[in-house]
Amino acid sequence: MLKNINPLLTPELLYVVRAMGHGDVLTIVDRNFPADSVASTTVHGSLIRIDGADICETAKAIFSVFPLDSFVDAPIHYMEVVGEPDSMLEVHKDLHKIAIENSDRKWEMESVERHEFYAQSRNTYAVVSTSETRPYGCFMVTKGVIGADGKVF
Amino acid sequence: MLKNINPLLTPELLYVVRAMGHGDVLTIVDRNFPADSVASTTVHGSLIRIDGADICETAKAIFSVFPLDSFVDAPIHYMEVVGEPDSMLEVHKDLHKIAIENSDRKWEMESVERHEFYAQSRNTYAVVSTSETRPYGCFMVTKGVIGADGKVF
Repeated sequence: MLKNINPLLTPELLYVVRAMGHGDVLTIVDRNFPADSVASTTVHGSLIRIDGADICETAKAIFSVFPLDSFVDAPIHYMEVVGEPDSMLEVHKDLHKIAIENSDRKWEMESVERHEFYAQSRNTYAVVSTSETRPYGCFMVTKGVIGADGKVF
Repeated sequence: MLKNINPLLTPELLYVVRAMGHGDVLTIVDRNFPADSVASTTVHGSLIRIDGADICETAKAIFSVFPLDSFVDAPIHYMEVVGEPDSMLEVHKDLHKIAIENSDRKWEMESVERHEFYAQSRNTYAVVSTSETRPYGCFMVTKGVIGADGKVF
């Protein structure tokens, strides 16, 4: 345990989010996602498991330290409902809200088709799996920049 | 880079301080300490290098997240000046002051004879080396407990 650090930020997860740089992408997924196989081809190369926590709890921990990227249109992508590309589920709105609450701006969020999500997430920096029960609770978030003043750029 | 995290807390150093538990000891040393060989027998097993930073900068980073142990008489130990067991140098006072400034209490600090320091530090959790130029700038700090309320116990 550390002072001022959310307990869900495990040693491995802290290592990974600190090691990532500008433009690197972190994948955060629900309990049905093929997380272990997808993680095997990421930069980190092995899955980071946050068993026992859902997407909301995990997002609160990650966004307490993780700066989102202001250089791209949408630093958050979520998995589309199959056959309903325009649907945005409660789990998607929940993570989006937590990202905004942990920041000083309204980040944009876009959807990615399911198989395209698998393909893209295989090339991200790392995969974090949660115990989220709600389907399509899968996200890719792009890391931003901390300026010389310590604030998100 | 992360929000609200001192930049000297590297991926590996964050991993280690988060992985440590109550009673585990972290060794923090100057540039002349036999850091690499001593680190080889620690729990972590390899040296964590913070080159470019001195003891004061490194202590500020570590104590921003690291809770000291209130269960022991002195959670900070420093290396004694050879032949002058009662001397406390500026570098020792500097780290002690930073530990207190990053807390809500006045932690005790005790000295350890040089060769005894080597022997004890070989059994600590990990060794962090700095670029501190002042001799005897070597410390062992014991990790404490974060209570359910998020405060140091």
